[in-house]
Amino acid sequence: MVESLSKMPRRIAILGVGLIGGSFALALRQAVPDVFIVGYDRDEVNLAAARQLGVIDRGTAALAQAVQEADLILMAVPVGQMPLLFEQMRPHLNPAAVITDVGSTKVTLVEMARAHLGEAITRFVPGHPIAGAELSGVRAAHPDLFRERTVVLTPLAETSSMSYEWVCRCWESCGAKVEQQTVERHDEIFGIVSHLPHLLSFSLVHDIAVRDDAATLFRHAAGGFRDFTRIAGSNAEMWRDISLANRTVLMAELTRYQDQLTQLSQWLEERDGAALEEFFKRARDARRRWQEER
Amino acid sequence: MVESLSKMPRRIAILGVGLIGGSFALALRQAVPDVFIVGYDRDEVNLAAARQLGVIDRGTAALAQAVQEADLILMAVPVGQMPLLFEQMRPHLNPAAVITDVGSTKVTLVEMARAHLGEAITRFVPGHPIAGAELSGVRAAHPDLFRERTVVLTPLAETSSMSYEWVCRCWESCGAKVEQQTVERHDEIFGIVSHLPHLLSFSLVHDIAVRDDAATLFRHAAGGFRDFTRIAGSNAEMWRDISLANRTVLMAELTRYQDQLTQLSQWLEERDGAALEEFFKRARDARRRWQEER
Repeated sequence: MVESLSKMPRRIAILGVGLIGGSFALALRQAVPDVFIVGYDRDEVNLAAARQLGVIDRGTAALAQAVQEADLILMAVPVGQMPLLFEQMRPHLNPAAVITDVGSTKVTLVEMARAHLGEAITRFVPGHPIAGAELSGVRAAHPDLFRERTVVLTPLAETSSMSYEWVCRCWESCGAKVEQQTVERHDEIFGIVSHLPHLLSFSLVHDIAVRDDAATLFRHAAGGFRDFTRIAGSNAEMWRDISLANRTVLMAELTRYQDQLTQLSQWLEERDGAALEEFFKRARDARRRWQEER
Repeated sequence: MVESLSKMPRRIAILGVGLIGGSFALALRQAVPDVFIVGYDRDEVNLAAARQLGVIDRGTAALAQAVQEADLILMAVPVGQMPLLFEQMRPHLNPAAVITDVGSTKVTLVEMARAHLGEAITRFVPGHPIAGAELSGVRAAHPDLFRERTVVLTPLAETSSMSYEWVCRCWESCGAKVEQQTVERHDEIFGIVSHLPHLLSFSLVHDIAVRDDAATLFRHAAGGFRDFTRIAGSNAEMWRDISLANRTVLMAELTRYQDQLTQLSQWLEERDGAALEEFFKRARDARRRWQEER
């Protein structure tokens, strides 16, 4: 069936019309002027806004309606809501529909997809655009959000190459650079460079917030604290879902990180200034190099 | 002797002419137009720049020369260099000279001051302006750096009230708000809201930098990582000194923080989404409130 796919999608279903879903819609609209985009969202007000902004052509809170004629389905809801969507949309899928998502964890999601998608798994191309975060909601959507950004695709053994190529082409038409990784490697990388720092940042703020003298402590927090804890202002439900979905990697990384803190404590105990300086220097040099290379 | 102090200093010695020392000099110059400012620095090029920028009237690499006629001495060198300065300047002090500093740790510094300053300890007013950090060096110095910023002063039992009032007035003339704390409470507060996050940020970057696949990991790091690790680009020697000077607080805080990470790991192990969400929510709410109240 995938053989009948045209070069670009004609009818897209965006499940979850927020910053990412909305920006994908706007970018695709520029690449395929006559595309028809249906938005699915549980929030009717949000759907009305998306229609008004020209992000989608039609909005619906009925999943079956959204997906039944779509040749491309982009799942842009929080990771925790995806399993239910897989299950509910399966009976209504167009037999040629290619499915992709934008979730920031992949291993657990793929397990769910395998459990619920049946033969449609061959047309599922898991994805993760590395963009967004500062703003959210469809009003912040922008056709250039993905320009020069990386989109990681993690095709499965079952994924047909035509489905993969198709999703690849869609992201490239948004201006993104596509990179391929395995599902496991994806979760490991983002567990380390993104999920772990979020947990660490939440933990510092929590550690202060629960104290009797929290108000005094917060009053003395300055610029370093502000930057370190910016990500602790993130959505709690979303980070609950990400943490659970990537729990194996996170448990291992938390242990590894704690071992480092134990090492630091030991050097403090022993007043080992040389070891501390060497540790800080290595981090500082790596951080500065990273900044320069961006 | 302090009884003879005029309302504001006439002759100031700035030991360490960088961002903080230089900005103090520029601000005092606006408040006391005929003040004479001598800068002491081991770096002759830096002294020449400070003279050229009008930050200081005279520069010297000889400590005795810098302090002998000063009625106010501001110590703005890294914390690790202060003990030696106390020792070396003591024989050359003007008997009425009031001494203050800008170090970000106080307990260890005060021990050193007590050991080396002799009777001049009655004119020592430990201080800590909460400003700076983003930039460094005398070229970044600015007379408004301390405007609306807090300066914490931690007078000792020995500190004469006139010395305290005098230093207080100087900082207020820079536009700062002065707050009084005990030496121990100061180190506890800043150990928690500043020193601990620095150690945590250095640790995350180090944790990644030592891996075989560091280049791949860094390549996928994005905005959250950038903010979380900005402070890991800080000066390694300075943070070695601060860590050692505040080691007792930091060891206790690292243990407390690790206990939280152990709790997070356990919730991940048990797949306790409700507990994770509650934890993230409390942190998120506190972080958002902090941001709004600034």
